[in-house]
Amino acid sequence: MALIVQKFGGTSVGTVDRIQEVAKKIIKHQQQGNDLVIVLSAMSGETNRLLGLANQLNDQPKGRELDVLLSTGEQVTIALLCMALEQQNVEAISYTGNQVRILTDNTHNKARIIEIDDKKIRADLAQGRIVIVAGFQGCDEQGNITTLGRGGSDTTAVALAAALKAKECQIYTDVDGVYTTDPRVVSEARRLDRLTYEEMLEMASLGAKVLQIRSVEFASKYNVPLRVLSSFKDGGGTLISAEEPQMEQAVISGIAFNRDEAKLTVLGVPDHPGVATQILGPIARENIEVDMIIQNTAYDATTDFTFSVHRNDFQAALTIVQKTADKLGAKEVITDNKIAKVSLVGVGMRSHAGIANTMFETLADENINISMISTSEIKISVVVDEKDLDLAVRSLHTAFKLEQ
Amino acid sequence: MALIVQKFGGTSVGTVDRIQEVAKKIIKHQQQGNDLVIVLSAMSGETNRLLGLANQLNDQPKGRELDVLLSTGEQVTIALLCMALEQQNVEAISYTGNQVRILTDNTHNKARIIEIDDKKIRADLAQGRIVIVAGFQGCDEQGNITTLGRGGSDTTAVALAAALKAKECQIYTDVDGVYTTDPRVVSEARRLDRLTYEEMLEMASLGAKVLQIRSVEFASKYNVPLRVLSSFKDGGGTLISAEEPQMEQAVISGIAFNRDEAKLTVLGVPDHPGVATQILGPIARENIEVDMIIQNTAYDATTDFTFSVHRNDFQAALTIVQKTADKLGAKEVITDNKIAKVSLVGVGMRSHAGIANTMFETLADENINISMISTSEIKISVVVDEKDLDLAVRSLHTAFKLEQ
Repeated sequence: MALIVQKFGGTSVGTVDRIQEVAKKIIKHQQQGNDLVIVLSAMSGETNRLLGLANQLNDQPKGRELDVLLSTGEQVTIALLCMALEQQNVEAISYTGNQVRILTDNTHNKARIIEIDDKKIRADLAQGRIVIVAGFQGCDEQGNITTLGRGGSDTTAVALAAALKAKECQIYTDVDGVYTTDPRVVSEARRLDRLTYEEMLEMASLGAKVLQIRSVEFASKYNVPLRVLSSFKDGGGTLISAEEPQMEQAVISGIAFNRDEAKLTVLGVPDHPGVATQILGPIARENIEVDMIIQNTAYDATTDFTFSVHRNDFQAALTIVQKTADKLGAKEVITDNKIAKVSLVGVGMRSHAGIANTMFETLADENINISMISTSEIKISVVVDEKDLDLAVRSLHTAFKLEQ
Repeated sequence: MALIVQKFGGTSVGTVDRIQEVAKKIIKHQQQGNDLVIVLSAMSGETNRLLGLANQLNDQPKGRELDVLLSTGEQVTIALLCMALEQQNVEAISYTGNQVRILTDNTHNKARIIEIDDKKIRADLAQGRIVIVAGFQGCDEQGNITTLGRGGSDTTAVALAAALKAKECQIYTDVDGVYTTDPRVVSEARRLDRLTYEEMLEMASLGAKVLQIRSVEFASKYNVPLRVLSSFKDGGGTLISAEEPQMEQAVISGIAFNRDEAKLTVLGVPDHPGVATQILGPIARENIEVDMIIQNTAYDATTDFTFSVHRNDFQAALTIVQKTADKLGAKEVITDNKIAKVSLVGVGMRSHAGIANTMFETLADENINISMISTSEIKISVVVDEKDLDLAVRSLHTAFKLEQ
């Protein structure tokens, strides 16, 4: 008897018919002898509908009330799925985040889970019930409703799997697994059978947005095996787990990329301690997320400092950075908002030399200019012209034989 | 500083614009120096939308899950109203039934309130906040979500007013008060300024469906002054309260009526103890609500037993009663499903003789035949042919000078 946590996203429960399909799938898994805890998102479109209502009444609704509002979305789906299961004479019971209870801090709209009480769930499982939990939500010490932020249902599922010591946490979504790269760019892209947490983190943050990053971090921290599967077709999906010593690891697992980036470079910054925080502090305070950060060795007592942001944040970032540059007595700010980033990801990279060189060589052969380079232990990212992105991804996919 | 509980129904919060109107009204009342606790229903149509989803998945959804589902309706409106108030810089806070907490028994879909914890609400009021509570819902000892049944938001409002010892419980609805009778039938019908609980109970149960009966019972039990007002136009509405000795009471307060009744008579029932329950027991077990019950003095060791039901339940009731009649050895079952009931209501009736006679005389003058009569201390009901109903109501309204 294995305990499995399964999470179904908004598209999977987007209509009454799809909820019925999910019910069938769950019953099949129960009949295979599994204890099941199901985590659900709101029906697709519902969160946006509720946000639309909120925004008509308040241009900046408070976090607390927004959470009261948005948490109804999952509460509807858990009740509906229960009803669908009971119609098939399968015993099920639903719990809101507060009922479980999933205790969080009080940061409304992006709360963090502190503790999960597994007593009720264990008692229900012992009675042979399927337990259905509202994703994305919890409550704070005072009983205020909190939500975990967009995609938070993945985190709920992983946290429950950790608390219950589940054998596996399965994330059902509209893709059938994690691919070597985006199949829309490279038609030979191949589904990966397995991947390490670290690789998935690099893949996710770089644009292959299958799973919420926080849920992968969580899974890694508590060593919860995570599987990405399709709600709509059968298949083993992609298993994301810790690296196992005996695993014959491919050198490169996949190629991730980000289209909509912009970069800002402050030229001739006086090279003294605290420069980085003087430049990035004001950016962070405006809640602009910074992606790559590069600072080269100083020369002539000044240095050049470059960072990239999402293209939507470009103008805001530029305004801030220009002020900072004046204050620092920097030479100039230069920018490019037509860039893209492409990254090779793979734990095998650690023990293989020459990966970077193959990458640079491949791009050179295609006459693609590299404007920035940044590396980590299991990833190499380069920034290229936006127009070269597809060609870059395709040529690298072939060069590293990822289609095999 | 008076504490007032105000309840707004589904139509009053049915759209974003209407929620904004409600917010304005509330702010005005706060500026007049009142402490306010607001109880809301779901947006009109929302409960039916949710029920529709449920019925597509399960032809008989379990009470527990239905309550999880339906309680989201009010949770949405309380958050939205809070946002609308905060947009106007008025401090407000929302609570679900579980958060307050409103403790109920565990009879899902028609739970009864056991206890209300007023601590949080009092603390918020002391901070100058407007407190907004989801109507219609509570939770049981185990933390399961419960609902109070259709119209239960009125009961929530009255129960909160009782718990908080509010000066008044105001029910905002789409009519501007309680009328002497239905203005669609008698154009001279007049809005009543005040009414006793007993009169309102008789009016409500007889068809003037402005307030949920249970909420009036509750108000009467805890002596909460209840006021029915329009959400859409100004005016004092109708105050429903205990009878005051000094009140110069009109003899008759109003005329209530029910159109869609049907009556069933079992003729020649052997007159022995237990007959009434033998006839009505099987009816009650099928959840058919019985309205009037009349049994005349026995003659010749048999009696005739008549009761009326809503016309929708007529066929079901007939099937059951025919079986019972056979079992009891009764002579025959006769029926009429084209009847209507008209009732005079008024506490003044108690001290005035001759009301019944004036009623019968008035109907006789109009050549209206009376087929059943039933009386209580403050009400006289007669059953007439459906086709005579409007004429009966109009002529009685004039005879008792209710337009003045």
